[in-house]
Amino acid sequence: MNFPLLFDFYELTMAYGYFRAGIHNRRAVFDLFYRRGPFDHPYVLFAGLEGVLQGIEHFRFGEDEIRYLKSVAPQIRDEEFWDLMHRFRFQGVIYAPPEGTVMFPREPMLRVEGRLFEVQLLETVLLTYVNHQSLIATAAHRMVEAASGKPIIEMGARRAQGIDAAIDGARAAYIGGVSKTATTEAGRRFGIPITGTMGHSFVLAFHDEIHSPEDAKEAELRAFMRYAEAFPDQCLLVVDTTDVEHSGLPNAITVFRQLRERGYEPVGVRIDSGDLAYLSRVCRSALDEAGFPNAVIVASSDLNEFIIRDLIAQGAPIDAFGVGTNLITAKSDPALGGVYKLAAVEWEEGGTRRWSTPIKLSENPAKVTLPGRKNVVRILKEGRFVGDLIVLEEEEDPRGPLRMIHPEYRWKQKVVTDYEAVRLLRPVYRDGRRLIDTISPDEARQTAAASVAQLSPEHRRLHMPHEPHIDLSDALYERWMEEIRKRRMQAQT
Amino acid sequence: MNFPLLFDFYELTMAYGYFRAGIHNRRAVFDLFYRRGPFDHPYVLFAGLEGVLQGIEHFRFGEDEIRYLKSVAPQIRDEEFWDLMHRFRFQGVIYAPPEGTVMFPREPMLRVEGRLFEVQLLETVLLTYVNHQSLIATAAHRMVEAASGKPIIEMGARRAQGIDAAIDGARAAYIGGVSKTATTEAGRRFGIPITGTMGHSFVLAFHDEIHSPEDAKEAELRAFMRYAEAFPDQCLLVVDTTDVEHSGLPNAITVFRQLRERGYEPVGVRIDSGDLAYLSRVCRSALDEAGFPNAVIVASSDLNEFIIRDLIAQGAPIDAFGVGTNLITAKSDPALGGVYKLAAVEWEEGGTRRWSTPIKLSENPAKVTLPGRKNVVRILKEGRFVGDLIVLEEEEDPRGPLRMIHPEYRWKQKVVTDYEAVRLLRPVYRDGRRLIDTISPDEARQTAAASVAQLSPEHRRLHMPHEPHIDLSDALYERWMEEIRKRRMQAQT
Repeated sequence: MNFPLLFDFYELTMAYGYFRAGIHNRRAVFDLFYRRGPFDHPYVLFAGLEGVLQGIEHFRFGEDEIRYLKSVAPQIRDEEFWDLMHRFRFQGVIYAPPEGTVMFPREPMLRVEGRLFEVQLLETVLLTYVNHQSLIATAAHRMVEAASGKPIIEMGARRAQGIDAAIDGARAAYIGGVSKTATTEAGRRFGIPITGTMGHSFVLAFHDEIHSPEDAKEAELRAFMRYAEAFPDQCLLVVDTTDVEHSGLPNAITVFRQLRERGYEPVGVRIDSGDLAYLSRVCRSALDEAGFPNAVIVASSDLNEFIIRDLIAQGAPIDAFGVGTNLITAKSDPALGGVYKLAAVEWEEGGTRRWSTPIKLSENPAKVTLPGRKNVVRILKEGRFVGDLIVLEEEEDPRGPLRMIHPEYRWKQKVVTDYEAVRLLRPVYRDGRRLIDTISPDEARQTAAASVAQLSPEHRRLHMPHEPHIDLSDALYERWMEEIRKRRMQAQT
Repeated sequence: MNFPLLFDFYELTMAYGYFRAGIHNRRAVFDLFYRRGPFDHPYVLFAGLEGVLQGIEHFRFGEDEIRYLKSVAPQIRDEEFWDLMHRFRFQGVIYAPPEGTVMFPREPMLRVEGRLFEVQLLETVLLTYVNHQSLIATAAHRMVEAASGKPIIEMGARRAQGIDAAIDGARAAYIGGVSKTATTEAGRRFGIPITGTMGHSFVLAFHDEIHSPEDAKEAELRAFMRYAEAFPDQCLLVVDTTDVEHSGLPNAITVFRQLRERGYEPVGVRIDSGDLAYLSRVCRSALDEAGFPNAVIVASSDLNEFIIRDLIAQGAPIDAFGVGTNLITAKSDPALGGVYKLAAVEWEEGGTRRWSTPIKLSENPAKVTLPGRKNVVRILKEGRFVGDLIVLEEEEDPRGPLRMIHPEYRWKQKVVTDYEAVRLLRPVYRDGRRLIDTISPDEARQTAAASVAQLSPEHRRLHMPHEPHIDLSDALYERWMEEIRKRRMQAQT
């Protein structure tokens, strides 16, 4: 059994650099956070934690792995180092909010503490899981918001960026609120509800000998009848293989009548092309007239949150939306730019241990990292989100009137009273084992729904949402300013 | 050992529909093709074939899988069907061009022939592999073209859409021409060259006690010295942790001098932020002045093909480009919209077997599928690409003067003489086993390079490229028109 070497090669060379410098066992703290939400959304749904915890369990180097690594790093001849790698099991601590939680820019979504070399080695695997799944959960959430209560079906596997992207993407989409997936393995692996009926090829497979449009229409009818025989109580027919109005829809109604005579109620029709507002109205009216007011209309065809919102706004009688490419690849913004930055490192001098809290300077102030071991305190008032406070871990939760101050525009302040303070990051991994049970997609989905429900509508708007209050505690702000001051060079021109 | 259920659930319900209709064993032919190139590029590099062939080997249903499928499809009570699934091994034939080949819109990239139910079941797994890897190979190819011979390093794992996307994406990027990857597992699994040196956290880990910018500069120097001790003959230093001009670069030069005294030549520096054109010039000039004209400058920081092209055009002295997000997610167009369409199905009447060649009509002419068992003949003249001819498989290769006719604008014609005709699709899987050896990334990369080298510069242009000649043979064109005529309804308003 080979464990995948899920790291960027520079994590190994750095680990060796630390080893050679004799500092590899120093305690270090890394934060995983993002700077700008995908789709300019003001928050993301934190997802991927279950993948992280499983990934860490598989993060080890067997003899095969060591042999390969030696072959590509022949300059590392230190057997002691290779022995350290071979014996390596992550012994640090990981802090995280519950999977599904709404998280804002700059807030640590993971805080990883451990020996410098080991927290460095985990960089890529943590980022890949969290970036990918938080991205897709957030993309799904936006579509769910747009659909105003109508269910969304995830059906993007064929356009996903690989097999994992299809399967883990379906899980993330479910956390974000989609109702079902077409990806069978996601159903098997995670217990997500799956769905699927028929595609155009099913109709075309009955195109035996076609001489005229009437033959094609009859072939479609044969296909529908055969499908209805196989699935009499789950009959959802795709009606746009040749022509919705003149073939697919009348054929579906014929079959629905036959079904009813046999004592079954049809499920409905699916439209996969054309103008969905127009065609859904045509279908609704014909189905109603034919006595099938309960037959549903499922629409798919390159849908995204804005098309869904517009269809809803136009009153298109669509009962469920199937989404593919735009969801499973987060097409309009296909990467969450989460980063993993050193926030604190312990050092020793003359027997004294101290924490140093380095920051990375940047010309762009938003890119300057926040120093120290941090947590996030969510301020709620009557169950509603008021703002977040990024704090130093050692700080007490705020009590009494709380002045929240914008970290850049310091004059923007508000005082909050009678609030509840909820510290979001809790240890989830320690002493070589996870501290929490397997996180089911249902659990994370409920966390997400509850977390989103705390927000005001103005934060949830798809376009130009209101900026939420994400502030720093006074102690953190002062530490931050001090670390900047100490490092800032005077520009010389 | 569980095999992943890599299919959309509707492929199973359709398979059962075929089974109930008694047509599941009919021979059927599906084409996998795309309609529009990603990034409006006029072609893609066909990739993912090795994944397809391995995926098919794993495509089976053990007892666990059958148990799960029965639980989610309780309406299928036909034990004969479940027995068919349980015994299922793909027995059909797959035709494909060599992995890496340049392929154009509408051309079959895979032709899959077999029993109707089995070719239907493979739909998603084939599409996922080919769509993803062809997309990334093409994205990489564009960056390689932009870099005009300077090497590209793939380093996007942390932003990839899952672990597969990182690993298989690195393989695809290598096929597209990148030189190395940072993704260690891609190196181990596929033998791709890997690379990696240091990130900013390595420098920050030495920020012990910082009181002033001078302390930070000294800390960076200590970090560089330690790294140089660990990797004296592979010393590439990241110089932008605090300030390139006033700290990183002078520190690097100090360390490079020490290295040279010890008999080592430094590799160079990496810049990961700021204006790369400006900073690379600053670095080049300082390194040259200090006597290190051979020290390279590696640049990274949200690069894409257009920024790379502009940096090259500006004469930025960058020796290698590291690309992350924009490559590994194909950020500007993150899905190749490949589809899988029924092209022919055999039927029997009174003992006679015939091929029916259905097409899917659409209001959009570009979406109307091409009928029949097809192949692609590449027309080369003196080794240069002239055009492609999509033909019916039973047609002979063209000989003598060849009139190529645009399939939509029929008046666009050209006559070609003295050409070579190369049939691209060959069987790669038959009788339950692959017919070709494992395809190494190097082999596919060479195929890609040779295939691209046949094209004219106007087809390879990154922006507004010239449209290549992709025509249909007369026989295919006539068959297509006939199938359209037979199905076309008269619009009634």
